[in-house]
Amino acid sequence: MERVYNFSAGPAVLPEAVLREAGDEILNYRGSGMSVMEMSHRSSIYRGIIEEAEQDLRDLARIPDNYDILFLQGGASMQFSMVPMNLMKNRQADYILTGMWAKKAAAEARLFGDVKILASGEDSGFSSIPDLSAIELRLDSDYVYICENNTIYGTKYSTVPDFKGVDLVADLSSCFLSEPLDITDYGVLFAGAQKNVGPAGVTIVIIRKDLVTADVLPGTPTMLKYKTHADEHSMFNTPPAYAIYICGKVFRWLKSLGGLSAIQEINKQKATILYDYLDHSRLFHATVRGADRSLMNIPFVTGNKELDSTFLAYAETLGLIQLKGHRSVGGMRASLYNAMPIQGVQKLLECLETFEKEHLI
Amino acid sequence: MERVYNFSAGPAVLPEAVLREAGDEILNYRGSGMSVMEMSHRSSIYRGIIEEAEQDLRDLARIPDNYDILFLQGGASMQFSMVPMNLMKNRQADYILTGMWAKKAAAEARLFGDVKILASGEDSGFSSIPDLSAIELRLDSDYVYICENNTIYGTKYSTVPDFKGVDLVADLSSCFLSEPLDITDYGVLFAGAQKNVGPAGVTIVIIRKDLVTADVLPGTPTMLKYKTHADEHSMFNTPPAYAIYICGKVFRWLKSLGGLSAIQEINKQKATILYDYLDHSRLFHATVRGADRSLMNIPFVTGNKELDSTFLAYAETLGLIQLKGHRSVGGMRASLYNAMPIQGVQKLLECLETFEKEHLI
Repeated sequence: MERVYNFSAGPAVLPEAVLREAGDEILNYRGSGMSVMEMSHRSSIYRGIIEEAEQDLRDLARIPDNYDILFLQGGASMQFSMVPMNLMKNRQADYILTGMWAKKAAAEARLFGDVKILASGEDSGFSSIPDLSAIELRLDSDYVYICENNTIYGTKYSTVPDFKGVDLVADLSSCFLSEPLDITDYGVLFAGAQKNVGPAGVTIVIIRKDLVTADVLPGTPTMLKYKTHADEHSMFNTPPAYAIYICGKVFRWLKSLGGLSAIQEINKQKATILYDYLDHSRLFHATVRGADRSLMNIPFVTGNKELDSTFLAYAETLGLIQLKGHRSVGGMRASLYNAMPIQGVQKLLECLETFEKEHLI
Repeated sequence: MERVYNFSAGPAVLPEAVLREAGDEILNYRGSGMSVMEMSHRSSIYRGIIEEAEQDLRDLARIPDNYDILFLQGGASMQFSMVPMNLMKNRQADYILTGMWAKKAAAEARLFGDVKILASGEDSGFSSIPDLSAIELRLDSDYVYICENNTIYGTKYSTVPDFKGVDLVADLSSCFLSEPLDITDYGVLFAGAQKNVGPAGVTIVIIRKDLVTADVLPGTPTMLKYKTHADEHSMFNTPPAYAIYICGKVFRWLKSLGGLSAIQEINKQKATILYDYLDHSRLFHATVRGADRSLMNIPFVTGNKELDSTFLAYAETLGLIQLKGHRSVGGMRASLYNAMPIQGVQKLLECLETFEKEHLI
């Protein structure tokens, strides 16, 4: 079988060029006589790899010098704890709930202090970003927390909200590097790599330096202090070295495409193909409407569970895989991350059109 | 350049056969059309990979059914916190200091309770395992902690001490799977994979099931509870999927060699070649004597720093790399993990002999 089109929400498709290069280097990285998996993280050759990755990321996302870039472990779920343990000096933080992951983050923060829910989309099944015009933000809160792109529901904040000087903490796991962003909007942002950046096992944290302090909650383990990792440039202990190396290749691939503005255009093209079809289809429809639509994760349904299953099986015969929606939304979900080629979306479109013709009476 | 002989203390050499197989599968794992790096961790194909890895490890190390196997993130350093947060019910634990890593573990445990140092090798530069015949173990301590093989100093407990029913917690990072072991000696054992098992980014924890409880210290983050991961078979959130896949290949490679008794014989052969030479050399000598010698990490010196440097440079010209000792011991260190071929040790022996001839007056 050839390579499939993999619409998984994460871990997810990686650029084929990146995998080919990694394959070529797997026994012997650039004449070193070793795999990157075998290299001491303290060796000059590996330091070159991680430093180049960090610099390329800094260039791509225009990360100012007053922000640290950390390559950590444990996924976004570990950040759900690290954020309050490091930032909740006054034991007070405000959260906006736009899905399961934001809810989990808020529940974890409650272990450490007083959490106010400013707004929640739960009543509408998280099918849109809640209206924030009337929220009662606590101006003395340690931070406000959002999940910017909601992988399960296919919603995204169309703009980063303004929280009147309260530091913003944001989970960007499923939209990081899919479009240009203004890092200065955030106090802390983080992203598990396995959706849009690299393999599972590394989490990228970007944090304004004044938030990296020794003044953390009592009982915070050494490994959960941002300062531990910032002081040692992500080398306090052995980092997930191979995963970082693959991320570095993805950063270079993005640069070679023209950076975040260029990939945003491609991502818009890909999503538009699918949304345009869904908005005109008589069989399939998108579950999210309007400005809150994600470019990365596009859930859609027929309204008939049996027909959804028939479609998923049919798509799989064409090499279009992992299109099943999350159980909380049902139906289908196409994740169109950076590395999904436009050909994959075109093939999905053909598949949808063919299926619609055959199944409309 | 061909493949070198890599004596790094970790991340370290992996079996070439494992890397070749991973290279062959990097674009398309067994007809799936995907890299393992791209697979949803919830997919049946990835579940097959992690379940097979776990079963192979269970077979290899004869892990009884009343022990859980966990694939976690954060390295041994994260275990330094997880151990007390999960096990220190009575806020009291006893530690034996045999090197820098045991000291770090004890320091971290002090954040959470009363730590008694039962014995320490610090006065002798950690060049031997301290005498345990007269230790005053507290029988009501929550656990006793040891680091079984000391990577930096090249020492190892020749037998697992008997702690009279107090649960033993042990860091086996640099000796795990190098020889048969009796899992029932331990309450918890853990190993960062990057020394003897796989790439950096996954930590293997083996824990007796009665120690996996919801009764942890207040303020323990969800991700740091063993129960979180045990309940979900290491799939509470996205695991370091690719690193686990490589570990699985290493487990199969070990099985194909004949398991832990077979690899122990090979490891003894390799270490004997080097120790025998060092014990008769007039130029080089091992820094550890007697029964405490590690089979995995063998530090040695000439006694002359300049000569050490000259030797290291010479060895590197022959493709023998990462032989530099840790700064706290100086000189050289040869790490002879499972994946170091006997040919590498023979080549090192020739290199030592040649250098000795040329540099003895």
